[in-house]
Amino acid sequence: MSTIREVAKVANVSVATVSRVMNEKGYVSEKARVAVLQAIKQLDYRPNRVARSLFQKRSGLIGLIVPDITNPYFPQLARAVEDMAHKHGYQVILCNTDEQFQKEHEYIQSLEAMHVDGLIITTNYSNNPNYETIEVPIVALDRVLQGAIPTVTSNGYDGGKKAAQFLLDHGADELVVISGPSKLPTIKKRRDGFEEVAGKHLVASIESPFHFQGALDAANYLFDHYTCNGIFAANDVIAAATIQVAAERGIAIPEQLQVIGYDGIELGQMISPPLTTIAQPIYQMGELAAKLLIQRIEGKEIAAVHHELTVEVIERETTKRKDEQI
Amino acid sequence: MSTIREVAKVANVSVATVSRVMNEKGYVSEKARVAVLQAIKQLDYRPNRVARSLFQKRSGLIGLIVPDITNPYFPQLARAVEDMAHKHGYQVILCNTDEQFQKEHEYIQSLEAMHVDGLIITTNYSNNPNYETIEVPIVALDRVLQGAIPTVTSNGYDGGKKAAQFLLDHGADELVVISGPSKLPTIKKRRDGFEEVAGKHLVASIESPFHFQGALDAANYLFDHYTCNGIFAANDVIAAATIQVAAERGIAIPEQLQVIGYDGIELGQMISPPLTTIAQPIYQMGELAAKLLIQRIEGKEIAAVHHELTVEVIERETTKRKDEQI
Repeated sequence: MSTIREVAKVANVSVATVSRVMNEKGYVSEKARVAVLQAIKQLDYRPNRVARSLFQKRSGLIGLIVPDITNPYFPQLARAVEDMAHKHGYQVILCNTDEQFQKEHEYIQSLEAMHVDGLIITTNYSNNPNYETIEVPIVALDRVLQGAIPTVTSNGYDGGKKAAQFLLDHGADELVVISGPSKLPTIKKRRDGFEEVAGKHLVASIESPFHFQGALDAANYLFDHYTCNGIFAANDVIAAATIQVAAERGIAIPEQLQVIGYDGIELGQMISPPLTTIAQPIYQMGELAAKLLIQRIEGKEIAAVHHELTVEVIERETTKRKDEQI
Repeated sequence: MSTIREVAKVANVSVATVSRVMNEKGYVSEKARVAVLQAIKQLDYRPNRVARSLFQKRSGLIGLIVPDITNPYFPQLARAVEDMAHKHGYQVILCNTDEQFQKEHEYIQSLEAMHVDGLIITTNYSNNPNYETIEVPIVALDRVLQGAIPTVTSNGYDGGKKAAQFLLDHGADELVVISGPSKLPTIKKRRDGFEEVAGKHLVASIESPFHFQGALDAANYLFDHYTCNGIFAANDVIAAATIQVAAERGIAIPEQLQVIGYDGIELGQMISPPLTTIAQPIYQMGELAAKLLIQRIEGKEIAAVHHELTVEVIERETTKRKDEQI
């Protein structure tokens, strides 16, 4: 990536002269102007950068960085961001980082180089020092980053508490949480909330990867070693895996085992029996993140920096009806 | 969106003069040059267009137009496109059209205005006259467009035949196809292939929307009016809905009813029992589409225009084992 300094050096003029040429402001000799334009071409100095400097305009692009769009939590989030962006005349560039620091870093660099107007980041690298050096507005979605970066999350601690209370209220008294990776703060909160309300009814607390195959292993491990009648899965994919393993083992849901998930993705409706879950307002979270970002891009004041939306129980058929509880 | 003609009109010069200013080629009086630059600013003529004309460079952007990223078929496709694009230094702009002609039209216009280098389109508007006027390379994915536009699809006709043969081979003899919208050529082929092989064993051919709620209605309608022991669902979402309705009605799968889906999305593994399905090579299709597009963008010859990939049966637990068939 060439810089304005290299352009100045190759054209044998000052940086100020390059800037004057690009901004079409102030006096520049025809010879210097030609030299600068030739240097820009020779060095492959980014045309968008030139255009931006020339006209001080927006690119109309927003970068959306997700771990993996095939994780079924993210399509709805991406859809909401794209809908809101579209409404305001922005386009969304989709980036998948696989939670790899290096990949995230590269994406941020190339997005900055193509002059995106802002970034929406769902990342685990909450202490990535790069964020402080990024010049465009950022909003963090589903994660809390450091400092003054606006965030949109949901109340996972309350969600965990609600899950435990719901299972207790519906007659389960031997409770297990199958948590996601506990190094993720948003996941840890769900577990902590659940454990607090479960109290003496907590039988075990097991960690599982977020992907389905890993969750199958976690569920098999659980059923091999523990007896329980109520499970809180830290996301709906883990819940689906738990239900599949229970079905293979002939454990009746919800009669012998009640299961409650977390997220509220469409998957929960598609499995049999349909999944009771703690639903995040995923679409609204994506919408709000995009709205906050666009407000920041357009230089507007935003009311609050950290937005934590509420979650709610969606009762389906993996838990007992209240009147069946005893 | 302003055009070069409007710029010329406002600047009171010819289009050729505007072009000369933008290309920094040929003689232009200083007065005309200033007038053109002012007109460009006044009309908000897109800076990328200017930059592109100035330097004849690529934007590094690929537009990916899908009906809806929350339809679980598309995330894997989008992921594959993005992976391949990333490998070649391109970024992917995600657009959701909801299968609305007007929305698709608007997206194509704004993507062209921001000078994407190419477009990957999964669309139902196979006769959209706009495609012929698009100046950048296009590849059609999961759909066949008219003319010389390269396409990547899978062999749905063969998939339908394989589904029927598999059910017959595993002891089902009263067959139903729950098709998707038959106005879609790729869907019609799946149904046609199935019907051909099912022959005298075909009990009914029912059309369902692709979304889960609509598919629940279709399955209920089917079970209310027909008796069958083998169902081919035109996608995995319809299969999941069919299995859920069967479970609610106490129909044992696969003992009383065998079900086979189509697509091979991860959902099929997550439901209980796990779904036997005709798998498209979704990731490879996305990869190939992106690869073909990049070859076209970079001016390389592409070997063939229409690529139809093969599909295969993934046997899971919604169909009987061969030795259980009688």
